[in-house]
Amino acid sequence: MALIVEKYGGTSVGDVDRICAVADRVIAAKAKGDDLVVVVSAMSGETNRLTNLAHEVSNRPPARELDVLLSTGEQVTIALLSMALNAKGCKARSCTGSQVRIRTDSVHGKARIQNIDDTRVRADLDDGCVVVVAGFQGVDEQQNITTLGRGGSDTTAVAMAAALKAEECRIYTDVDGVYTADPHLVPDARRLERITVEEMLELAGAGTKVLQTRSVEFAGKYKVPLRVLSSFEEGPGTLITYEESLMEQPMISGIAYHSDEAKLTIRGVPDEPGIAYQILGPISDAHINVDIIIQNVSAEDGTANVTFTVHRNDFQKALSILDEIAEGLGAAEVVGDDNIAKIAVVGVGMRSHAGIASKMFRSLADEGINIQMISTSEIKISVVVDDKYMELAVRTLHKAFGLDQE
Amino acid sequence: MALIVEKYGGTSVGDVDRICAVADRVIAAKAKGDDLVVVVSAMSGETNRLTNLAHEVSNRPPARELDVLLSTGEQVTIALLSMALNAKGCKARSCTGSQVRIRTDSVHGKARIQNIDDTRVRADLDDGCVVVVAGFQGVDEQQNITTLGRGGSDTTAVAMAAALKAEECRIYTDVDGVYTADPHLVPDARRLERITVEEMLELAGAGTKVLQTRSVEFAGKYKVPLRVLSSFEEGPGTLITYEESLMEQPMISGIAYHSDEAKLTIRGVPDEPGIAYQILGPISDAHINVDIIIQNVSAEDGTANVTFTVHRNDFQKALSILDEIAEGLGAAEVVGDDNIAKIAVVGVGMRSHAGIASKMFRSLADEGINIQMISTSEIKISVVVDDKYMELAVRTLHKAFGLDQE
Repeated sequence: MALIVEKYGGTSVGDVDRICAVADRVIAAKAKGDDLVVVVSAMSGETNRLTNLAHEVSNRPPARELDVLLSTGEQVTIALLSMALNAKGCKARSCTGSQVRIRTDSVHGKARIQNIDDTRVRADLDDGCVVVVAGFQGVDEQQNITTLGRGGSDTTAVAMAAALKAEECRIYTDVDGVYTADPHLVPDARRLERITVEEMLELAGAGTKVLQTRSVEFAGKYKVPLRVLSSFEEGPGTLITYEESLMEQPMISGIAYHSDEAKLTIRGVPDEPGIAYQILGPISDAHINVDIIIQNVSAEDGTANVTFTVHRNDFQKALSILDEIAEGLGAAEVVGDDNIAKIAVVGVGMRSHAGIASKMFRSLADEGINIQMISTSEIKISVVVDDKYMELAVRTLHKAFGLDQE
Repeated sequence: MALIVEKYGGTSVGDVDRICAVADRVIAAKAKGDDLVVVVSAMSGETNRLTNLAHEVSNRPPARELDVLLSTGEQVTIALLSMALNAKGCKARSCTGSQVRIRTDSVHGKARIQNIDDTRVRADLDDGCVVVVAGFQGVDEQQNITTLGRGGSDTTAVAMAAALKAEECRIYTDVDGVYTADPHLVPDARRLERITVEEMLELAGAGTKVLQTRSVEFAGKYKVPLRVLSSFEEGPGTLITYEESLMEQPMISGIAYHSDEAKLTIRGVPDEPGIAYQILGPISDAHINVDIIIQNVSAEDGTANVTFTVHRNDFQKALSILDEIAEGLGAAEVVGDDNIAKIAVVGVGMRSHAGIASKMFRSLADEGINIQMISTSEIKISVVVDDKYMELAVRTLHKAFGLDQE
């Protein structure tokens, strides 16, 4: 008898009928003889409804109270799914983040899981129950309710799977697996049977919306077998593997993009040790995630320019922090642009193949797409372009690297 | 500096504007220098919305999961009110029942408070915060979420006031105090400046909707100074007192009624010791509250009839339990009627005055109202009548006892 953690997102539990359909799926999985822990998100639309209520009351609702408010979304879903399971004759019990004891730090809205107590969930499983756990939420040491930020339910699922040493963690989404590119943008995109965790990480980090980076990192750290599959149709989905590269590793496994990005540049800062820290330290202290960072020196006056990208939601906040920093450093100016997109080619095969970058840059140039920033890692090359070119860039690269062919 | 507990019901926090208005009231109270704990209900309509969702999923949702679901209602309100207070410059922090540690028994949907840990609330008060507490909810020993049943937020407020030894517990409602009768039914009804807790208990038990019986019992037990007042207009409301009867105690302080009642009769049970327990024990085990109980012996065949009243919501459940009991006892038959109303005259002065009962019965007879059941206590006489006579009976008695005159 294996233990399986399943996770269903907001769309999969979007209304009462869908919740009942999820109950059927869970019962079918349990009928195979496995123990089941099911992690769910808020019903789609609910988080927005609650956020709007908060903003009707306050322009800047305290993060602590926003978490108290938003966490009710998942609590409603766990109750309804448990009711649906019980109504269909399957013993089930719900568990909030606080009841499981999913302990996090105290960074409201972006909390990180520190540890999970598996006592209660184990006891309920031993009692023959399906345990339905609220995703996205936890409690800090003082029992304050915290939320994990966007995509947090994936992280909850993976963390539960790690804590319970589950056989597999299945993330049910509205797509049936990980594709070589977004099928909405690229009709020829193909589903991958399996993908390495590093590739998945780069794809997720570069904005493929299937899984949140943090959940993949978590899975990689604890080697949780992770499978992405559709909650609406049958199919094996895509398995995220931890094995060494296969013999005939394809060079590029996929093209990822991210449209909710913004970039900020501070110009004319002194070119001296510690300058990057002085600029990016305060940004990080404000819990803003920075992705690409580029620093270069202007030959003329010996000052440096630093450019970095952040999520578009954090753009205004980052801009005002950067303005303060600029004043302190006597920088020349701060400029920002929130009409950018990030596109990346990803593949572990890239390590051993030269010429990927030049092929990428040439393909984009052939379509007249200007590259604003470039950043590379061992298995990924990312570029920033004007967001109006995003779709064209993704399609061009998908074709250029032959991902449309088996 | 005194500590005040305030409680605002669902109508008072029915939308964002009203929540902001409550915030203004709280701030005004705090400006007088008092420490404030504010207990709130779910926004009006929210509990119904959630209950409907549950019933879409399941005909008989498990009580445990229903509590998980319903308790989100108050959690939303505490977050929004805390946001509104902070937005207006008043430091405030929300607390769920679980966070306070309002410990209850495990009777989901009708849980009773066992104890309240005041540590966290005291710490937040010491920190200069208004503490906004979710009414209606608690946790049992295993951290399962429980709810206290109808009117439970009043009970939460009184229990918090008792635990914190508050100076006063103020229950804000949509009426401006306790009246000699329901002003909607009796235009001449007058607001009482003060009322003894015994009178209030009898009034509440007999269905005056201002306060729930349990909360008044609780207040009486811990001698919590309790004041009922309007959340929409200024005014002193009605103070519930614990002092001995005043010298010139009016004979009757008010007329109460309850329309959501049903009665059940089991006929032809053996007239032997223990019979009442055999009948009412299983009803009580099913957590159905019984109000009036009447037992009498039929002279002819030596068997007894037992009649009792329950809340209309419990009627079908009580009926099916009674059918089983009837079979076990070989009773002649079980009959029920859920079209009844209960009307009571209440007053501590009644103790020392004869003739109240006969005056009551004669007034009703003069109007052609048939009395189905009679029950008396030291300070109350209740009758059950066909519910179509309810309004007429209340008005007739209000006039007969001179409550329309100062």
